[in-house]
Amino acid sequence: MMDFSELMQARQSVRSYTNEPVEEWKIERLIEAVRLAPSASNSQPWKLIIVNDPEKKDRVARATYSTLVSFNRFASQAPLLAVLAIERPKVITQIGATLKDREFPLIDIGIAASQFCLQAAALNLGTCMLGWFDEKAIRDILGIPQKVRIGLVLTVGYSDEPPRKKIRKKKEQMSAFNNYF
Amino acid sequence: MMDFSELMQARQSVRSYTNEPVEEWKIERLIEAVRLAPSASNSQPWKLIIVNDPEKKDRVARATYSTLVSFNRFASQAPLLAVLAIERPKVITQIGATLKDREFPLIDIGIAASQFCLQAAALNLGTCMLGWFDEKAIRDILGIPQKVRIGLVLTVGYSDEPPRKKIRKKKEQMSAFNNYF
Repeated sequence: MMDFSELMQARQSVRSYTNEPVEEWKIERLIEAVRLAPSASNSQPWKLIIVNDPEKKDRVARATYSTLVSFNRFASQAPLLAVLAIERPKVITQIGATLKDREFPLIDIGIAASQFCLQAAALNLGTCMLGWFDEKAIRDILGIPQKVRIGLVLTVGYSDEPPRKKIRKKKEQMSAFNNYF
Repeated sequence: MMDFSELMQARQSVRSYTNEPVEEWKIERLIEAVRLAPSASNSQPWKLIIVNDPEKKDRVARATYSTLVSFNRFASQAPLLAVLAIERPKVITQIGATLKDREFPLIDIGIAASQFCLQAAALNLGTCMLGWFDEKAIRDILGIPQKVRIGLVLTVGYSDEPPRKKIRKKKEQMSAFNNYF
């Protein structure tokens, strides 16, 4: 069992997968990780669509490809995709958001995706969060209403990549005490 | 050591703290949890300001109070506050965001805050994410430029609350396979 520091290190964006399928019990644990995620006013403003039907999965994967630059093509390789749709938060959250000009559901989607990907890593699964996709195409494939935005598409599967060293800003570039810098 | 499921259960929004200070080595681990967080195009669009100067901490805490409804007053009790400021992402991310009409940095702030709070729970620390605050006042206190938005204020300390059972939507209300519902 990894401690949380090791788990954060182990989670990395995986862009190459084996063809081994994801076990059903692990899918249940991933759903549970999103279900338990905290959110503004406990609104839980998300729906998680697990895409494992081969034909739909293939179409959703293709909807994450870019025609501008060649990326996300690895999405077709992942045995499982998960789509995080953004639901309306509670009325109190909506009022607060308007008063303070801030979009809490996007922060909440990030929290939920984080718990999903860390839980996956704890189960020895690789993931990648995709923020670039053809939203309208994915709505059509999964029957998502026009007014519902899609937050992220997550690829899931067994990694075919070695662990990498993380490239990050230095502590001094991203943190400080008591004063902005 | 907790496994990740136990850790997610242990993390809860803590609104009552003992007066025990947070050890310096634990603060370093919390900074590291944000530093390692994944983000769109690895932009790391955040600065984490740890507020432990007593006078500044008191002023930031007061800036999270609401005059409309009485909440966040517990923030003054927390021995430590952390402010997540939102930085501009990479140019490629900004172009993508414009093309796709989406604000990646807010998702990224959620991911970073999630790693912060889970790491805190792994260190037996309680946290609460506050999305409601007087942004201008906090900017003034910490010297944050006008154009920089503040994503979240996090309270940190030793919990004075018992663990609660989480109130969440049922699995059937927040997840499905292959079709939106």
